[in-house]
Amino acid sequence: MKSQYSNRSASGSSQPPTRLTMVGGGSWATALIKILSENNVHVKWWLRKESDADHIKKFGHNPSYLSDVQINTRKVKVCTKIREAFRDSEYVILAVPAAFVSDALTGVKPEHFTGKCVVSAIKGMIPGANQLVTDWVSNQYNVPANQMSVIAGPCHAEEVALEKQSYLTIASQDPGCAEEVAMLLRCRFVQTTPVDDIYGIEYAAVMKNIIALACGITRGLGYGDNFQAVLVSNAMQEIRQFVDAIYPKHRDLSGSAYLGDLLVTAYSPFSRNRTFGTLIGRGYTIQSAQAEMNMIAEGYYAVKSIYEVNQRFKVNMPIVEAVYNILYERAVPTGEMNQLKGLLK
Amino acid sequence: MKSQYSNRSASGSSQPPTRLTMVGGGSWATALIKILSENNVHVKWWLRKESDADHIKKFGHNPSYLSDVQINTRKVKVCTKIREAFRDSEYVILAVPAAFVSDALTGVKPEHFTGKCVVSAIKGMIPGANQLVTDWVSNQYNVPANQMSVIAGPCHAEEVALEKQSYLTIASQDPGCAEEVAMLLRCRFVQTTPVDDIYGIEYAAVMKNIIALACGITRGLGYGDNFQAVLVSNAMQEIRQFVDAIYPKHRDLSGSAYLGDLLVTAYSPFSRNRTFGTLIGRGYTIQSAQAEMNMIAEGYYAVKSIYEVNQRFKVNMPIVEAVYNILYERAVPTGEMNQLKGLLK
Repeated sequence: MKSQYSNRSASGSSQPPTRLTMVGGGSWATALIKILSENNVHVKWWLRKESDADHIKKFGHNPSYLSDVQINTRKVKVCTKIREAFRDSEYVILAVPAAFVSDALTGVKPEHFTGKCVVSAIKGMIPGANQLVTDWVSNQYNVPANQMSVIAGPCHAEEVALEKQSYLTIASQDPGCAEEVAMLLRCRFVQTTPVDDIYGIEYAAVMKNIIALACGITRGLGYGDNFQAVLVSNAMQEIRQFVDAIYPKHRDLSGSAYLGDLLVTAYSPFSRNRTFGTLIGRGYTIQSAQAEMNMIAEGYYAVKSIYEVNQRFKVNMPIVEAVYNILYERAVPTGEMNQLKGLLK
Repeated sequence: MKSQYSNRSASGSSQPPTRLTMVGGGSWATALIKILSENNVHVKWWLRKESDADHIKKFGHNPSYLSDVQINTRKVKVCTKIREAFRDSEYVILAVPAAFVSDALTGVKPEHFTGKCVVSAIKGMIPGANQLVTDWVSNQYNVPANQMSVIAGPCHAEEVALEKQSYLTIASQDPGCAEEVAMLLRCRFVQTTPVDDIYGIEYAAVMKNIIALACGITRGLGYGDNFQAVLVSNAMQEIRQFVDAIYPKHRDLSGSAYLGDLLVTAYSPFSRNRTFGTLIGRGYTIQSAQAEMNMIAEGYYAVKSIYEVNQRFKVNMPIVEAVYNILYERAVPTGEMNQLKGLLK
């Protein structure tokens, strides 16, 4: 079946530029802007903060995140009015923390999404609704599932800024949609692969933030590399069981979008979830750990959503439970991890 | 079926101590000695170097490796004569680099192995013979396969020395044998799990050293965390295909003995294979990289063995091939990794 998107041009320079809306002013949004600017794409970039928008217009740099990245203001138009950012675009990329999606889209109505391909670059669930971002957007704004895709893969924004070789996986139920988005994001230093397991990839991406948080907690408590390797191995089994219970499908979890994404988050000093966990493990309260960091750790919200969703599925997930107990049940990290340590192998 | 080993005592203090021979004086042998000393085990510890043996006898510390570890000389008797070390023991643990096994066992005859349970703590293949250590010992000394086991799992000797929580997997075709060895090595800070996939685990352990070397090379060339996560994910697929081709069997490669072992080697600064690779990536010649390090990088020999074994199986292994080409075909690391980068996803 020919995709409805297959007549769109992603990067051919003889074609008119692809028109895209970017929602979010953080480091991942900034990195994606950098990648998109390598191709024939014109972006309307929505940021919440007026002062950041003004700075970018004047100086071509985001003052708050990845400020070394040069923004090509011929191709990238900044605005702070979400409806203006949505006008005439073919693609919308959502790149705000999951907890802020609803806020960011205030004033946007279902008809503003009509005909647009919606791409979630968010690795989290909508708190309270306990829904994946694509499910929530699909429901709230009547976007057909085959117009939804997600950007996944092991990709720290900081390394994209440095043009380090990176890989992205684009998942959509519609192969044409996945391929179109993959083309938009393919460039000198980024390879992209379209796949169809959107739910598996989205859930795995949510879970990995929880695991990175767990890794941080154990680091903070003084556990070493041997323990972390076992924790991550057991986590992969936990992720597989959970994802298989929710969306049974043949999938190879050692792929870059699953295992790779977990690794880059669990092992990298850039990971905010890991950093947040490390502070908790060292004895910070949740409030003081959050105050210490300038960014939201998605894993903090994700563990509550996953824990609650799992009340229906009853998958045995000792790592998720330990993190939940520490963050939401005031369990002492030492005791919780002592108990977990006996369950791993 | 009751195992022939099930009447042996591993650690019950009311029983006579288990008698064990340790072959090797390196860091892993020293760490295993530390673990064994936690249990009711008497060890005859063979080391090649007279001066090291004398030092241990006098001061209770291995002067060359993990010298902070206190050796309990009531339980651990050091010697430099291999036949003396073999006398009367029920277990033999081999813990020398694969390339030195044959040398270390000079003078040992098949009858000296009679009735002993042989445990390989070596993650490498016998160079030239291109055999797994257990296969080679089994053939050379007529040790029945069900008396052979391997120690695997993500376990840096340095962290064992620090009594950091660690996990070992013991694999043997004989469940009783695996359980006995697992009991010997279970202690305050080490959990052990017996399993039956001895070949899969041994091959995976050999392969992970090659992958760690590849990770080091890319580090040395300036690739970042994003790339390494993709490299390791692709490596897991390469390992699975290879191991499945050689020993088809249902196995979950996300287990600690497979994935965990790879992670601790690929991501840890303690890894000699990764360090060796980093030097190669930075432009050192093989000779100068080897001279720089005081330890053998098993991956250097392993990649030749695996490459040669794969001539029969023809599994598509671009990462193994790239490392082989760099180390044995004088391929330039930059060019080889440039080519590899296009094959990953």
